[in-house]
Amino acid sequence: MRIERIEQHQAFGGQQLKYRHHSDSLHCSMTFSLYLPKPSASPTSLIWWLSGLTCTDDNFSQKGAFQKYASQENVAFLIPDTSPRGELPDDEAWDLGQGAGFYVNATCEPWKQNYQMYDYLVNELPEIVYDLIPNYSGKESIMGHSMGGHGALIVGLKQPERFSAISAFAPILNPSNVPWGKKAFTAYLGTDETTWKTWDATELLQKVGEIHPPILLTQGTADPFYAVQLNETAFLANVKDTDEQVRYEKKEGYDHSYFTIATFIEEHLAFHCQQFHK
Amino acid sequence: MRIERIEQHQAFGGQQLKYRHHSDSLHCSMTFSLYLPKPSASPTSLIWWLSGLTCTDDNFSQKGAFQKYASQENVAFLIPDTSPRGELPDDEAWDLGQGAGFYVNATCEPWKQNYQMYDYLVNELPEIVYDLIPNYSGKESIMGHSMGGHGALIVGLKQPERFSAISAFAPILNPSNVPWGKKAFTAYLGTDETTWKTWDATELLQKVGEIHPPILLTQGTADPFYAVQLNETAFLANVKDTDEQVRYEKKEGYDHSYFTIATFIEEHLAFHCQQFHK
Repeated sequence: MRIERIEQHQAFGGQQLKYRHHSDSLHCSMTFSLYLPKPSASPTSLIWWLSGLTCTDDNFSQKGAFQKYASQENVAFLIPDTSPRGELPDDEAWDLGQGAGFYVNATCEPWKQNYQMYDYLVNELPEIVYDLIPNYSGKESIMGHSMGGHGALIVGLKQPERFSAISAFAPILNPSNVPWGKKAFTAYLGTDETTWKTWDATELLQKVGEIHPPILLTQGTADPFYAVQLNETAFLANVKDTDEQVRYEKKEGYDHSYFTIATFIEEHLAFHCQQFHK
Repeated sequence: MRIERIEQHQAFGGQQLKYRHHSDSLHCSMTFSLYLPKPSASPTSLIWWLSGLTCTDDNFSQKGAFQKYASQENVAFLIPDTSPRGELPDDEAWDLGQGAGFYVNATCEPWKQNYQMYDYLVNELPEIVYDLIPNYSGKESIMGHSMGGHGALIVGLKQPERFSAISAFAPILNPSNVPWGKKAFTAYLGTDETTWKTWDATELLQKVGEIHPPILLTQGTADPFYAVQLNETAFLANVKDTDEQVRYEKKEGYDHSYFTIATFIEEHLAFHCQQFHK
């Protein structure tokens, strides 16, 4: 398999890198970004970042302001794209098709040939990325924003042994019951809503009970999508009374933008690193 | 005069704002960005940021990673656009016309009606912005990147009493003698190179001698524009032997991107704040 490095920028003593490769899962050419912290004698852990609707792997690299802390904490960041790309099925709307893969495996036409983002993420991409991290510790965790916050939750809850921590900024928490999620799941998974349950974080949390990585969720109160798309009620109702591993924090006055992510990324990184060091 | 706030995002306890207004100097509608730090009892100082070729006022706001330090140090940031905008003279090339105003007052057709960026910056824009900063200290300084690094130098060297400090990342230092500068100055100022001297930082430094604000210049050694566009030899040759107020620092492996700016913005902010506190 051919993988090509297409960008390299030094940042905070480390390297912000961008790669292109052919994906066998998605049947198209994909890019991803990778931050490697400044060289260190101790093993490097890996945090995955999943982006939101309309994003590519560039948004978080350029606007996330995480590199300083990643370099200090000796953590690498993997930033995948948000969907398959190129001459393949798409939709005119920004919340379906390219830029809006929702990190699921589609089962319906015309999506199912290419929109296998879950398989791409959990099986194909890691095998490429682990080899790019010098002195990789084998420890990994996952975070994301909005659609990607939901992606982090479903990937982390479906593979609870794999990830040390899960966190999200302004995540969709219950896609089966909000407009963005209903539209995407109907297209990718079909109208039989029982098939949606294995791709909905609220349902997955109920299924796994307390057996999950520690979860940190940050939601700005000035986020215009909060009330309709990002409501937390159903998700939090599925947190067991004895489960102390879910933190849900509201931040007064913060919105849905990368300015919120930049402000609180240091807190999220500290949360993940605390788990790595356990 | 009508000024309209078109964006507002909370960031690090402060506000990242964007405004639109009609400019009398440029005869067009302009946008600028303004960061206000979190509210403080002590007076707030102001740093101007001038961006490089092709940029708008968004690049530094989104990729500069300065808001944390600005909020900690109680400093506001004014980020103007890089040229007049709209249905007015332009060029197909990215290094002339819109996005490439070079912060000079043009004297030649077809540019001179609109391309009065120096007047806009030093006379028109500040009168709008000072009123937007609660408890403004009256202290201001200037920094920038590439074309905007040169802009910071010429604005600061032409008004040495006004600014507490000047700094620049990867600045053009001697535009009269490099391709970007020759092309822009020929278009905006004409072929008589004697008229270029009042807009060239190397010439201005010779003229002011040691009477200038402290200057910090940061240049990455992996910057692809370094050798041809950003050479420092002539500028540093004009620093008087007894002048200890110019620091020129090379950073090994850093390039021309905002990743370099994000990495060293904390150092630049500390340099400016040291002058504010004198």
